[in-house]
Amino acid sequence: MAVFQKALQVITPGRSTTAVTAELQEIVRESGIRTGICQVFVQHTSASLMVCENADPDVREDLERFMQRLVPDGDALFLHTAEGPDDMPAHVRSVLTQSALSLPVSEGRCALGTWQGVYLWEHRAGSHHRRLLVTVLGDL
Amino acid sequence: MAVFQKALQVITPGRSTTAVTAELQEIVRESGIRTGICQVFVQHTSASLMVCENADPDVREDLERFMQRLVPDGDALFLHTAEGPDDMPAHVRSVLTQSALSLPVSEGRCALGTWQGVYLWEHRAGSHHRRLLVTVLGDL
Amino acid sequence: MAVFQKALQVITPGRSTTAVTAELQEIVRESGIRTGICQVFVQHTSASLMVCENADPDVREDLERFMQRLVPDGDALFLHTAEGPDDMPAHVRSVLTQSALSLPVSEGRCALGTWQGVYLWEHRAGSHHRRLLVTVLGDL
Repeated sequence: MAVFQKALQVITPGRSTTAVTAELQEIVRESGIRTGICQVFVQHTSASLMVCENADPDVREDLERFMQRLVPDGDALFLHTAEGPDDMPAHVRSVLTQSALSLPVSEGRCALGTWQGVYLWEHRAGSHHRRLLVTVLGDL
Repeated sequence: MAVFQKALQVITPGRSTTAVTAELQEIVRESGIRTGICQVFVQHTSASLMVCENADPDVREDLERFMQRLVPDGDALFLHTAEGPDDMPAHVRSVLTQSALSLPVSEGRCALGTWQGVYLWEHRAGSHHRRLLVTVLGDL
Repeated sequence: MAVFQKALQVITPGRSTTAVTAELQEIVRESGIRTGICQVFVQHTSASLMVCENADPDVREDLERFMQRLVPDGDALFLHTAEGPDDMPAHVRSVLTQSALSLPVSEGRCALGTWQGVYLWEHRAGSHHRRLLVTVLGDL
């Protein structure tokens, strides 16, 4: 049994999704772990993780449109508006999705389904530096 | 410390929830692990996992009704409609719930509360073969 | 590699959020584990976990207001009303957030971002005893 941990930095271009699947697979390869889990954590409260269909970019576009309708920017409901109309919606969107995600590791790779990708979802309008911490646990 | 991994196949009858609690408990028993975690992952983007009240089936019926209202089939908002009106709602419903779920293992069993069950939630209208990968880590 | 497990009891004052960050950090310290993961699980289906901004209490107030609008108490949609108008909404709110949460452990602490806290979110109107089970896995 071994543990391997590595940070992953992503500069987001503002509200959008960024694929991190390849980066996670590379960290798992580097860990040498063959069977176990790969835990990913976003150290921010305005960006989150999702496992999503990886073939048609319209799927992620539709998810963004759905979230904008469900949690409208500038909603009069919100008291916390210090950083602008996208501030509180970003926190809500993060809570409704995942700050932490665990993936199985099998034969030295994250065992995703054929159509699955892992994405970092930036919920703020502007570009941000986001730090993810990846922990791999299992048998070498 | 040991790692044990096993796939679990579920044939769903279309949109509905299927209890997998007993199957998970059996995999944990088979692993021989007494203390640790049991990580469950769905290798699809149109079905997901939830921990839910296990006594009154109306609870899962109400969750289904709530989701159908929150994410309507055939919503004109969606661009991705290749596989029909339930295609994109299935992706949204998956993102709003869990692709991955970690449960504590205690005394050789998933340490669920009295009223907790684990369910696979099929979000597509038709029947599907769904593959779950279960990873148990911990002390024998 | 080591595993450490400990229960955490929280008495909630009814619908509200309770910070558990300090309690989790204390359990990780007690475990002696320096690098790995800390898995937290709520053994109930009417309370859940979230990682949330920890500086401005208005953020959690806004999340509560958002959830009350999204999942209204006493909604005529719901069949399961045995325990009152907040019964079924509590189950929906739990499913839309997290029963289980995994945090990375680094240098003997949960490696949260500067503005991140971990909160137990009570979704029922009345006070409840809630039991969380915390499992820490990793290298000493």
